[in-house]
Amino acid sequence: MITTRDRAFMARAVQLAWRGRYSTHPNPRVGCVIARGDRILGESWHERAGEAHAEVRALSLAGTAARGSTAYVTLEPCSHFGRTPPCAKALIEAGVARVFAATLDPNPNVSGRGLEMLRAAGIRVHVGLLAGEAAKLNPGFMKRMTSGRPWVRLKMAASLDGRTAMASGESQWITGPESRSDVQRLRAMSDAILTGVGTVLADDPSLTVRREEMGDIGSATEPGRQPLRVIADRDTRTPASAKIFRGGKVQVFCATASLATSAAQDLAALGIRLRGVAWHDKGVNVAEMLDTLGDIGINEVLVEAGPTLAGSFISEDLVDELWLYQAPVFLGSTGRPTANLPLESMADKIQWQVLDRRQLGADQRLILARR
Amino acid sequence: MITTRDRAFMARAVQLAWRGRYSTHPNPRVGCVIARGDRILGESWHERAGEAHAEVRALSLAGTAARGSTAYVTLEPCSHFGRTPPCAKALIEAGVARVFAATLDPNPNVSGRGLEMLRAAGIRVHVGLLAGEAAKLNPGFMKRMTSGRPWVRLKMAASLDGRTAMASGESQWITGPESRSDVQRLRAMSDAILTGVGTVLADDPSLTVRREEMGDIGSATEPGRQPLRVIADRDTRTPASAKIFRGGKVQVFCATASLATSAAQDLAALGIRLRGVAWHDKGVNVAEMLDTLGDIGINEVLVEAGPTLAGSFISEDLVDELWLYQAPVFLGSTGRPTANLPLESMADKIQWQVLDRRQLGADQRLILARR
Repeated sequence: MITTRDRAFMARAVQLAWRGRYSTHPNPRVGCVIARGDRILGESWHERAGEAHAEVRALSLAGTAARGSTAYVTLEPCSHFGRTPPCAKALIEAGVARVFAATLDPNPNVSGRGLEMLRAAGIRVHVGLLAGEAAKLNPGFMKRMTSGRPWVRLKMAASLDGRTAMASGESQWITGPESRSDVQRLRAMSDAILTGVGTVLADDPSLTVRREEMGDIGSATEPGRQPLRVIADRDTRTPASAKIFRGGKVQVFCATASLATSAAQDLAALGIRLRGVAWHDKGVNVAEMLDTLGDIGINEVLVEAGPTLAGSFISEDLVDELWLYQAPVFLGSTGRPTANLPLESMADKIQWQVLDRRQLGADQRLILARR
Repeated sequence: MITTRDRAFMARAVQLAWRGRYSTHPNPRVGCVIARGDRILGESWHERAGEAHAEVRALSLAGTAARGSTAYVTLEPCSHFGRTPPCAKALIEAGVARVFAATLDPNPNVSGRGLEMLRAAGIRVHVGLLAGEAAKLNPGFMKRMTSGRPWVRLKMAASLDGRTAMASGESQWITGPESRSDVQRLRAMSDAILTGVGTVLADDPSLTVRREEMGDIGSATEPGRQPLRVIADRDTRTPASAKIFRGGKVQVFCATASLATSAAQDLAALGIRLRGVAWHDKGVNVAEMLDTLGDIGINEVLVEAGPTLAGSFISEDLVDELWLYQAPVFLGSTGRPTANLPLESMADKIQWQVLDRRQLGADQRLILARR
């Protein structure tokens, strides 16, 4: 039933979907190929929320030739009116004869409905072709729709002796330009960048995407907006003059009691969103913060934080991927640790699975997941 | 003048020389090919000190066919009577017409003499073919002959967050079996293994080569003896019952004042060699210890030590190669550092050049040299 050609067209749809990696949030990355026999009649990808979905763009390229064709979509076509009309309807109206969907819509409220609409219109439907590859496109969208929380990537730039800065806090630059450029691309893939007030006070970072530092992004759609910057700041110590407040939206998580402080009111007056969250003696309630980020539509959050917040994420097992940039240097035994993580015995050690190793100039990037 | 065939035969000689990697110490690893035209008449390598040199073995395989042939040797043939007669003489007597030597003998007292003997006998001589590859065979022999000190390899087994043990000292096992097997091969390549009394007291290691853990060594000559184990032990605190004293020779470096202690006398009574060396407030005088090891014929020393001794080697810039085995785990911020190395500012950071990266099971082995 499923031919090599079907696989090839779906692989092409996955490839197209990746072009939206810097631009579709909060929507998922989706690719679509409309084909008949060996011929591609139209192919496209979703570029930005509010703009046409992949299926509609591909159908319009195919035109009337779409009648009787097969559509390959990386995600189940939507069945509801959102900012655009339902894609399932568009496929039906175009007279498509067959639809391959790599994955179902993960949203439990609508999952399966798009395919039902297609089947009801007499279209032959197949689900699951290259499902694994398609799911990798949208780890955050998939996770948020099923658990309510975003996909968490923790980024660290460290030396071979596991230090991220000198005791003084001095840290620029540990890694080389290739790594820093990669971090820009990682930021651009993210819906939000999360840091702690300690980092803001020490380094005054912008945490924005600097397009010129991203390098060549090939055929990907240009990033269209800055990720939401998020600060965990119990006592609202972030000064209104902080660079992070320039160049896009910021969300501050503080202790509920801090919402009434004059510092909080000063920030609110600048248009900065503040939200109370619980804190315990080890720091912010990370899980609650993630729930809130999920609620406001954050699919993928990048944590770029100091050892305290990084340590909380690791010890509470809330890291989906650790992106570790390792520079071939030693910063010495007095340098700052990658994460405040007090472990007693070898039995407590955190075991990682290496998902990817890549050379970036003199550095190495590891992508790790808990084992 | 030099043909592709000449290069191929010298490459073969280098390859043969590597077969002696676990067995020739304190002699250098040497390979030899005797060829005429396209044909190899005899080829061999030096196996063990006291046994026949590579040239003599290769010549005896070639027999009378060696007359008029070309010899390819990775190191200048010796000109003096040592434990065996001079190889230059053997080449002359066999009637070899041409000799390619990849490198000169690094011993300044005899360097060039072997080739002179050959030339005086009317043999055409060429030096330098694959010199770089041949020099890699014997970094320690080369270094000791020119500087008096052995080649220093510092071995570390660490986590991705730069820890070698828990705060309690617990450390077994950070790395996997493939790494541990590799360490056995590394030990077997070494003339001596150096550690500190702290490691001896904490872990009571044997620091021997366990042949069964080395795995398959291919066509290499079997290791014939244990490397010398060396302990830096200022106050002669190593108990006579320590495992390190079983299974081979041990050298203890202590403070000169400690030579007169009863503990020192107990060790001496067991046949353990003690030697006084200077100590300063940061630890043992590493340079002096290396001078002594060079004097007693140690070409390659492997340092397997705790953070204090490792830190001394690094901060005094006395490490030729750092062999870092990295396991994909975090041991946490309370774990022991790889080296006690107090550095103040980023300008002080130790920069490494990555000579080799290799995957060993789930671990990665890096071979690093100071930049």
